[in-house]
Amino acid sequence: MRIAVDVMGGDYGCGVVIEGARLALQANKKISALYLVGNQAAIHAALPQRGFRDHRVRVVHASEVVMMDDKPANAVRKKKDSSIARAAELVQEGRADAVVSLGNTGGLFAAATLKIGRLPGVDRGCIATVIPRQDNEFVLLDAGANIECKPIHLAHFAVMGSIYSREVLGRKKPRVGILSIGTEDSKGNELTLEAFKLCQRLNIHFIGNIEGHDLFKDHVDVVVCDGFVGNIVLKTCESLAVAMFSMLKREFMRNPKRQIGAYLAQNAFQVIRRRMDPEVHGGAPLLGFKGIVFKAHGSARERAVASALRVTAEAVQHHVNDIIAREIARANERLAAVETSTPVLA
Amino acid sequence: MRIAVDVMGGDYGCGVVIEGARLALQANKKISALYLVGNQAAIHAALPQRGFRDHRVRVVHASEVVMMDDKPANAVRKKKDSSIARAAELVQEGRADAVVSLGNTGGLFAAATLKIGRLPGVDRGCIATVIPRQDNEFVLLDAGANIECKPIHLAHFAVMGSIYSREVLGRKKPRVGILSIGTEDSKGNELTLEAFKLCQRLNIHFIGNIEGHDLFKDHVDVVVCDGFVGNIVLKTCESLAVAMFSMLKREFMRNPKRQIGAYLAQNAFQVIRRRMDPEVHGGAPLLGFKGIVFKAHGSARERAVASALRVTAEAVQHHVNDIIAREIARANERLAAVETSTPVLA
Repeated sequence: MRIAVDVMGGDYGCGVVIEGARLALQANKKISALYLVGNQAAIHAALPQRGFRDHRVRVVHASEVVMMDDKPANAVRKKKDSSIARAAELVQEGRADAVVSLGNTGGLFAAATLKIGRLPGVDRGCIATVIPRQDNEFVLLDAGANIECKPIHLAHFAVMGSIYSREVLGRKKPRVGILSIGTEDSKGNELTLEAFKLCQRLNIHFIGNIEGHDLFKDHVDVVVCDGFVGNIVLKTCESLAVAMFSMLKREFMRNPKRQIGAYLAQNAFQVIRRRMDPEVHGGAPLLGFKGIVFKAHGSARERAVASALRVTAEAVQHHVNDIIAREIARANERLAAVETSTPVLA
Repeated sequence: MRIAVDVMGGDYGCGVVIEGARLALQANKKISALYLVGNQAAIHAALPQRGFRDHRVRVVHASEVVMMDDKPANAVRKKKDSSIARAAELVQEGRADAVVSLGNTGGLFAAATLKIGRLPGVDRGCIATVIPRQDNEFVLLDAGANIECKPIHLAHFAVMGSIYSREVLGRKKPRVGILSIGTEDSKGNELTLEAFKLCQRLNIHFIGNIEGHDLFKDHVDVVVCDGFVGNIVLKTCESLAVAMFSMLKREFMRNPKRQIGAYLAQNAFQVIRRRMDPEVHGGAPLLGFKGIVFKAHGSARERAVASALRVTAEAVQHHVNDIIAREIARANERLAAVETSTPVLA
């Protein structure tokens, strides 16, 4: 498989991304080509310095970068020679199977939409975020790409999230829930109530509505919502986790006994901190496109970049997109077959 | 001031609620009457056992209870002799200034709407939840009463939340933000974008859009959203906080060194746990009604009940509702005065 890496978007410069790519290549012999896309001079400066020589590596020059404060869609259109656009073009041209970027999420989403294009039958691509909890993790989608959604979009997210959870995260029979404000069928807003009816007809393990309370309790593997709600939930969780560690730290400093205690137990905190840290864990697959697209965290370090590439390779290897295309086609058939009072794709 | 307490709704029975009321009466001489509303026999059985004799106490019998799994509006209509309905009636009849309940939130909201009624000019009452963070707290509203909102509702929530934050939580110039998915003016969904324009015209300290990231960073004092989003955010936070403690606990048990450390530092955890615990801290004022209405946590113990009564007394004493009525009238004038392309109260 062939992976294109936009090396320019990360917080720590392209050297860190390139080193992460090296680790990934070392670990995965199935990667046959790895494109490092970005400023050629910077990449070449980073390459020998890291002692990175691998015949699978190809450098693709791009003179521009989509910055964090760029307006995504505009930036991808205007910065024609941006690393993210060039990396996506490698997929568009069939030279790569997947693209990974640490840069502007909206920029990556726009590049995926404009360059790579959506899979047939998929009305909207989405950002799926993998959020860790005690013993495993859940997929939250959409995490911010689609502010206003229609019921059919949520149904598609349910299908795509379920496939991702099964094929990449290894969950055997992913439990799919719609994020709402009560577990009863009748609870929710217009969007979720309609989406609920659609999800019932799909070939997924749909468990109905779930609440905020259920997210960290291992009740659900795939959490479906519109991008407005998803983005708020994701950022709220990140914010609260950080705040709790900061509160604990301050409390530990209040007296020597607590300081000693915190010192002795510090490994425990590190485990949790690492577990909850999006930089270490994470990343977000962008689903629904004709290529595997993965957003790694902007502040990812070498190992996190390698981990993003590992996950991306797995998605390619498991033919996630073929399965999504097939299952979305089936879902659309199922939904079209049933008479509905309101047209599903209206 | 006179407060009606629905003693029947709590998880620990009416004895705990009555003891909480006793503590509150002891601490606050300004309470001139306190109605204990519920099953008379149960109340009288609890009274002497607690040694609670205060001339300000009046027992009001109610033969029914709205249960947690009752459908709120139906239950309040059907269970005419429920403690929550009777307690709200005391406010309706002008015999009490405020009502406090530990029971079904929806039931209390329905009782407030049906019995007490909304303040003039207020289109929708709402549930405001006070959420703790490191050094203070913020008000989130609506936390679940109004699933589908119009922009004007969010504008009213902004006004009411701002007044509550100032008068009861003591914030001098509360920063009011709309919960959205980016801080730029242009970020949000249809509802928040319209609400943004309305809030700009109000006599509040409107800081614009805020994100999930901002909630626990002391960037904002009043967080405005529809009840769907608010309820999900609230429950997600509660769920994550519990999950993090549970993860820490498990990690501490992994070896003796960590166990000793955790033992030495345990006070620090207790401080944070208590700080983040809705049972201790919390409660939710229901705003927009012609009486002070306060929902205490179902699992509130004596001190939490007393704290709920203290907060309620403060709201009465600060004439929160007079201020809300006045400010909402002004807000409606301001919003009506400006020509808008879409009618504000449509």
